[in-house]
Parts: sequence; C-alpha cells; structure tokens
Amino acid sequence: MTVPSPLATLPTPALVLDEAILARNVSRLRTHLAPLAVTLRPHLKSAKSIEVARRVLSDGNGPATVSTLREAEMFAGAGVRDILYAVGIAPDKLARVLALRAAGCDLSIILDTTVQAEAVVAAARRTGDAIPVLIEIDCDGHRSGLHPDDPAIVAIGRILDAGGAMLRGVITHAGESYNAVGAAALADFAEIERAAAVRAAQQLRAAGLPCPVVSVGSTPTAHFARDLTGVTEVRAGVFMFFDLVMAGIGVCTAQDIAVSVLTTVIGHQAERGWIIVDAGWMALSRDRGTQSQAVDQGYGMVCDRDGQILPDIIVAQANQEHGVIAARPGATLPALPIGTRLRILPNHACATAAQFDEYAVLPGDGGALARWPRFRGW
Amino acid sequence: MTVPSPLATLPTPALVLDEAILARNVSRLRTHLAPLAVTLRPHLKSAKSIEVARRVLSDGNGPATVSTLREAEMFAGAGVRDILYAVGIAPDKLARVLALRAAGCDLSIILDTTVQAEAVVAAARRTGDAIPVLIEIDCDGHRSGLHPDDPAIVAIGRILDAGGAMLRGVITHAGESYNAVGAAALADFAEIERAAAVRAAQQLRAAGLPCPVVSVGSTPTAHFARDLTGVTEVRAGVFMFFDLVMAGIGVCTAQDIAVSVLTTVIGHQAERGWIIVDAGWMALSRDRGTQSQAVDQGYGMVCDRDGQILPDIIVAQANQEHGVIAARPGATLPALPIGTRLRILPNHACATAAQFDEYAVLPGDGGALARWPRFRGW
Repeated sequence: MTVPSPLATLPTPALVLDEAILARNVSRLRTHLAPLAVTLRPHLKSAKSIEVARRVLSDGNGPATVSTLREAEMFAGAGVRDILYAVGIAPDKLARVLALRAAGCDLSIILDTTVQAEAVVAAARRTGDAIPVLIEIDCDGHRSGLHPDDPAIVAIGRILDAGGAMLRGVITHAGESYNAVGAAALADFAEIERAAAVRAAQQLRAAGLPCPVVSVGSTPTAHFARDLTGVTEVRAGVFMFFDLVMAGIGVCTAQDIAVSVLTTVIGHQAERGWIIVDAGWMALSRDRGTQSQAVDQGYGMVCDRDGQILPDIIVAQANQEHGVIAARPGATLPALPIGTRLRILPNHACATAAQFDEYAVLPGDGGALARWPRFRGW
Repeated sequence: MTVPSPLATLPTPALVLDEAILARNVSRLRTHLAPLAVTLRPHLKSAKSIEVARRVLSDGNGPATVSTLREAEMFAGAGVRDILYAVGIAPDKLARVLALRAAGCDLSIILDTTVQAEAVVAAARRTGDAIPVLIEIDCDGHRSGLHPDDPAIVAIGRILDAGGAMLRGVITHAGESYNAVGAAALADFAEIERAAAVRAAQQLRAAGLPCPVVSVGSTPTAHFARDLTGVTEVRAGVFMFFDLVMAGIGVCTAQDIAVSVLTTVIGHQAERGWIIVDAGWMALSRDRGTQSQAVDQGYGMVCDRDGQILPDIIVAQANQEHGVIAARPGATLPALPIGTRLRILPNHACATAAQFDEYAVLPGDGGALARWPRFRGW
C-alpha cells in the first residue's frame, strides 16, 4: 500500500524543510571543520527557528551568530547562552544589548568606528557591564570593517580596553566569496579571510591588547578552507539549507537544498508556453541571486511534489501571488494539469524562508509532517 | 518649544506610514473615478491591515479585492462582506471559499479554464452554494486569462451557469501598464483594459449568459482612464501608498509615497563612498522594480528623518541586514554621522511593507505614533 504524501493536502504555497537534508548539511560542515580545530558558530539568521537551531548548534545550545537583536532575544529565551550579534552596533541598540546580558546571555557585539566604541564604553561605565566587543575587519572590500592594517583597529582596541568594555577579538566575513566559483577560488577566499583576521589580531596583540577570538566565515569559505591557523571560530548560515546561489558557485548541488516552496498549478497560457502557479514573489521572495551566475535559475528550479528536479523548466517570472513557469531555452514544457503540486528550490534560502511563518517539516523517518514556527522582525 | 519627533526613538528598521498622505492618495483616486461612474474595489494585498482597510474602503467596509484566502479570512472577520479573491482558483482551495461564504461573506472567485469551472460546479452542486465566479480575461499578454475573443469564455460561462454556480462577470488587469510611462501611454492602457473586458462581456451576453460585473484595474490605468463605458468596477492596490515604481512611470511623485523604512546609520566606508545603514533587504525587500526604469533608484530613495528627500543619494546595495547608501552619479555624499536616522522610500510598497508586522503610523494631526498591525501568509 502506498502511503499518501503529507504534501498532498498541505495548503499552498508552503515552506517545506527536509529534515534529513538539513542533518546531512550540518554534518558535512562539522566534518570538514573538525580537523581544522575551530569552533563552528552557526549563523541563525537563516533559521529564525528554535527547532532548527536545536539541530544546528553544538549540543543544541552552543555558540551562535545572529543578525538582529530580535534573533538574540528569541534564542536567548530558548536557552542559547553565547550569542554574537554580527551587525555593527547602533548606539541606540545598546539598551537592548545590556538587557539581554543582564538576563544571563553572553551577548557580544561588533563595531568598526571610534564613535561606536565610545558609546559602548559609556554604556559599560554606566552599568558596570564589560560588554564584549569584536572589531570588524574588511577582508575583501565587500561591506563593513576596517582594513587589517588600519591603525584605527588599535585605537578602537585601546578605547574599549581602557574604558571598561571587553575587547574580545576581531571578526571578518568574505562576502565577495559569493562571486567566486569552484573549490580553488573559494579556498583562495578562505585564505584571504583568514589572513586578514589573523593580521588584525596580530596588530592588537603587538600593541599589548587582548584578542582571544579570531572569527571568520561565510558558507563558501567555511566549506573550502584548507588551513585555519590563527582562527578560533568559523561562522556560516546558509550551509544548513543551501540554495541555488550556493549550487551555482559549486558549494553544493541542487540535491543538497533542504528548503523548497510547495505550490499548485492554477493556470496555463499555452501560446506563450507558460504554466501559472500560486507561488509568486510573496512566497519565493524577490531574490534573483542567480541572475549574475552562469545559469540564471529565474525565481527557482522546479521539482515534482516528491522533490525530483524537473530539469526542463524554471520559474521564469513572478508577480505577487503568481509564478510563471516556462521551459529553459531549447527544452519542452511538460504537461502539468491544473492542481498539480510542485516544489520550487530557492535562489536564496534566507530570503525565501523569511516569507513564511513556519516550516512544514518532512521528517527524516518518513512520518507525518511537523510544524516548526519561524519568527521575524528586529 | 520643539516637539521631539516620534521617530527619534522608534527601534530601527521600522515601517513608517504617513496617514495624511494615505488619506490624500485615497481621495485622489476616488475623485478621479467619481465622474466615470464606476465602483472602486480597492485591492487590500497592499495593505494587509484592518486599520488601513478601514481608511481605504467605501464606508470603511465596502467592496474589496484580495490576493490570498488569508486576506479574505482576515477582512471578512473584520466585517468586510463583499470580497473578490483575484487569483485563479486552485480546486484545493474551494473548501476555504465555501467556509467563508457559509459564514456570510459574499466571496467571489476567478478562473480561466474549464477544469476549474467543473471543480467549482461540483462544489456548488455538493453544497447548494452558488459560488460567484468572474472569468479572467487577458487584455495585454501580461499573465493569466483568456483572450477576449476566445470561445472558451462562453464555454466556461455555460458550464458555470448550467452547473449551479453564479456567473457574475469578467475581470481583467493591465499588468503591462507598469511598463508604460506618462499620462497618454497610461490612458491608452486603460482603454486596452476597458475594451478587452467589455468585449468579453459582450461575448457572454450575446450567448444569452449573464455578465453583471465588468471589472478592470491596476493603479496606473485607474488613475489615467478617461472613459470607462461598460465597466462596472475598478480595482487598484498600490494607489493607497504609491512607490518609486509608480513615480517612475509618472503616476505620482516621490512626495506622494506614504510608506518608508526608518533606518539608522551604523557605519562608513569613506574610501568607497559608502554609508552603512541597518536596513538591508530583509527590511527593504529584494524588489528592484526601478532597475528597468529611466532612473534606477537602487533599493530606494533616501529622506531625512522628517521625510525630506536627500536628492544626492540612494540605497545602492543591500545585504540581509545592511544597506549601503552611495551618491548618485556626479553627486556628493553628505556627512551622516553614526546614529543618524533616515527614511527610505520603497521601489515597491507591497513588497517592502510585507517585510514588517506593523505600521508605525504618523498621524495626520501630528500626535503620537499609532501602531497598526499587519498580517501575512496564505
């Protein structure tokens, strides 16, 4: 007797998480990092879920990275005690940082200006709480941070150290690695990331300042780093789910993507070669991260309800609640009648998952669907 | 004595709604449509808020359009009794349609295939509920619907009429009008939309079938229609908020945009000419709707905290929780210290607003901020 798929009756669109693939992805990164003698500090901005965090963190509770104070508050409330808020601190947000720390969470923050350092020091003096701080380093021109040779690193370090904050270390993120392709190029980026962080740490130590933590990471560099000498911890987020952007640069395959959007066929425009589904950009997100890659996956690759990739088609366009599936160049559009259920693999798992309030979880043991809530906001 | 802005202490990023601009935008469209003798059926997919709906609907409760059954359920629960669900019906969703109708909401649905019509008729027969249906017409090749001369219109009409459903009329949407620029081109699209709907209605009537409702609409065509002979109702959604995409095609100005994202400066990269803010794509959405327009606004135009446009800069890039502000070509980056608060005008109001769970409402009378909850999901 065939067991009916739990996805046959789930209202669409819905966010589906394959628990077995999640477990495999987590295991893969832990296995890669184990011989490199670093701590994995998963970035929970991809998860935004207590249930996912339990499966991703060491012992279900271990060190974590977050992108918002809301994440910090939610995960601290669930018992996570070592959290790094990895977005440059706004002085206005220090009150919430202090409240979380007063409640027992070892929350650390990051910054890259003396203005921020002075604000942290003032808060530390006022409260007597030695707020732990990492100085943000720019390793590849991607976004924030100080050049690893910038004398401001030591200047900021001195402000923090002398002012009653805790100078915990340095942090960098090779965001440009998302534009590299293949194992060799990604390994090179991992070395760029490592070298910048270690160099900045050496500057601090040469000035007589402490730097116990040297934190690096991005999903591409974490998977392809060959040597992490001098690094103490690695951060990565999307590794838990993977997505088409990661597949496009060779970090994973499409079969490694743990999240997808379940959708239903609601129409056809035969003359234009279109199949209309009920997942538009409100479900898929507006992320077009594969647009600049060798293969543009539109708004996502299409699988059948059971997750088998349909190689001839992609979601070519998206309106708010309509997705338009079309054939890839030279391919033929399959017949997919009204009511057919499909699953769409996302360009960017963080963006697509953020469009939903829960995961419909396909359990590893093949049993009934579980529902894991997601949160959002700041 | 200067009254401090209520936006000085609101945690960022936050979604700000200017109630006076909202009222002005609603009044503008109602004033334009009044002499055209049509009913306005606002599309609440832009609002997703009971409080906004009260200010947009006729008598706070009048006819409405929605894009999801969740919206229908939320607005019906708040007392809206005439709702059009304007996405082609999936047969799986009929149970929820019937439940809403049984609870007293006059919920109508749309479709464009005989397969859907047969499913509706089966549901009507099973329950004795004559579900009202509009047949979707394609006026401009944008998305779904039947060509106005397609004989399938009458075939579907007969299935519905003979099978115990209620054939209520025809519906079309000139989605391609978003790519037209200026009053004359938009008026032409309004006429394309009108002509297609009226022609389809005539087909039904010539076959002896009823067609009491002839529904057209998009924000651009609604504002520039000169003659709506034969049309009974107009739908529009983003007119209530407006956005940079609408400003780019001449439907409004940037000063007419009622929603913005409040953000805080958290860093600088002086050598690269960047100011970093705490609104990334998680707050702004990934929508890049102005990318194909004459002026690409990046991820949004930048205003000061009080809403005055800073013409020299835009949000040029966005990561998950970081926005990167840069000068427009040839312009100079202003000095905006750490902690400065700014407001970002969105490319696409529907997409940006969807990233938030509430509106922080600047009341028309200049009083304290109100909080209006938003919902989402399907």
